[in-house]
Amino acid sequence: MTRGRFVTLEGGEGAGKSTQLRRLAETLEARGIDPVTTREPGGSPGAEEIRRLLVDGEPGRWGAMTEALLHTAARRDHLERTVWPALDAGQWVLCDRFYDSTMAYQGYGLGLGRETIGSLQRLALGDFAPDLTVILDLPVEEGLARAASRPGAEDRYERMDRAFHERLRAGFLDIAAREPGRCVVVDARGTEDAVQAAVVSVVERLLPPR
Amino acid sequence: MTRGRFVTLEGGEGAGKSTQLRRLAETLEARGIDPVTTREPGGSPGAEEIRRLLVDGEPGRWGAMTEALLHTAARRDHLERTVWPALDAGQWVLCDRFYDSTMAYQGYGLGLGRETIGSLQRLALGDFAPDLTVILDLPVEEGLARAASRPGAEDRYERMDRAFHERLRAGFLDIAAREPGRCVVVDARGTEDAVQAAVVSVVERLLPPR
Ligand SMILES: Nc1ncnc2c1ncn2[C@@H]1O[C@H](COP(=O)(O)OP(=O)(O)O)[C@@H](O)[C@H]1O
Ligand SMILES: Nc1ncnc2c1ncn2[C@@H]1O[C@H](COP(=O)(O)OP(=O)(O)O)[C@@H](O)[C@H]1O
Ligand SMILES: [Mg+2]
Ligand SMILES: [Mg+2]
Repeated sequence: MTRGRFVTLEGGEGAGKSTQLRRLAETLEARGIDPVTTREPGGSPGAEEIRRLLVDGEPGRWGAMTEALLHTAARRDHLERTVWPALDAGQWVLCDRFYDSTMAYQGYGLGLGRETIGSLQRLALGDFAPDLTVILDLPVEEGLARAASRPGAEDRYERMDRAFHERLRAGFLDIAAREPGRCVVVDARGTEDAVQAAVVSVVERLLPPR
Repeated sequence: MTRGRFVTLEGGEGAGKSTQLRRLAETLEARGIDPVTTREPGGSPGAEEIRRLLVDGEPGRWGAMTEALLHTAARRDHLERTVWPALDAGQWVLCDRFYDSTMAYQGYGLGLGRETIGSLQRLALGDFAPDLTVILDLPVEEGLARAASRPGAEDRYERMDRAFHERLRAGFLDIAAREPGRCVVVDARGTEDAVQAAVVSVVERLLPPR
């Protein structure tokens, strides 16, 4: 059996990751691929418990290193219990955020740096990596406005300051520039349909010829 | 102001760590030192929340790496919020378990190995280390019998198999052999009074001359 494909969607708050993940899953279903859709932090029962510690509460609730460790613990559980079994069974897995978010948020945004976060991911996950990462890029104002307009109270990161969100955006773009073979930046300013078309055209490269 | 001293008590389930920590604090108080007593996992509000994820539930609830990451996240929070501020303020800190427990439980007991756990601790904590570590050594049967006889339901580790507990004990002894300048093994088979006398004689080396 062929191993499944692992596709991650990345970007700042309100960039459209969850929206586009749902749409990408529908597109794939129409092509006969039935993907597992999942998210981080979370995606397995244990990781969802860890998620609660991360997305609720005051922005300063955790120090940067503690936070990076909690995200990485949740990720390891998610991989062992959800992602790896699905890929081994030949399924595609679409994931809303993955380790690039830890690099962007804790590495660039909170200042732990590329090397520390990179070492932590390698130690915890080995050399496992997505087959493809779509980075949805949007001006900070627009993303925060979109995020604020949606229901839900998981806003611990949204409440961090403006400069933090600018570092995030620049961080994601730097990650993409360093790994052009894995990462593709998609302009997320268009309509949901326009962004979906761009995402699908990127994912085409992983699809078998029709 | 002189920085305080950081003393950790280590050993398997039921070795007498909590009992001896309380007694050591009393001895120090009688000598005019008012120590902070704390524990891991836990010791700060955030770390106590992480503790709940670790000590309850089924033995197989977390994979070994996830567990090591959760313990290390809790440790980082505990250091930042409780231990480092106290040491900076000149206080002694007595801690029930510290990073040697992660090395023994996840490194030796669950098989992640010395190198992985050592790298993780260095990445997360830098080169911070206890001034003194007392390792309470007891045959596995005796420790588990003592632990079983005490009230409380935080028994996730107690319920792991016998071979696991033997690896733990051997692991703690190996840690002590590798770091003789920091670690002292104390025979924990005696009465509480006898063990206390041995612990105090070890801690004497950190005390100012009377
Ligand atoms: N292309 C788009 N144009 C305008 N609004 C959008 C677009 N994509 C998503 N939204 C809306 O913006 C909000 C944030 O989108 P969401 O997919 O939840 O972002 P993310 O998961 O990246 O935080 C939602 O209310 C969503 O309906
Ligand atoms: N030296 C000792 N001899 C006999 N029982 C002891 C001794 N030290 C502690 N105990 C008892 O054994 C149990 C485990 O001790 P505890 O201090 O909780 O161990 P730990 O914290 O290392 O798990 C407790 O019920 C305690 O009262
Ligand atoms: Mg989302
Ligand atoms: Mg105890």
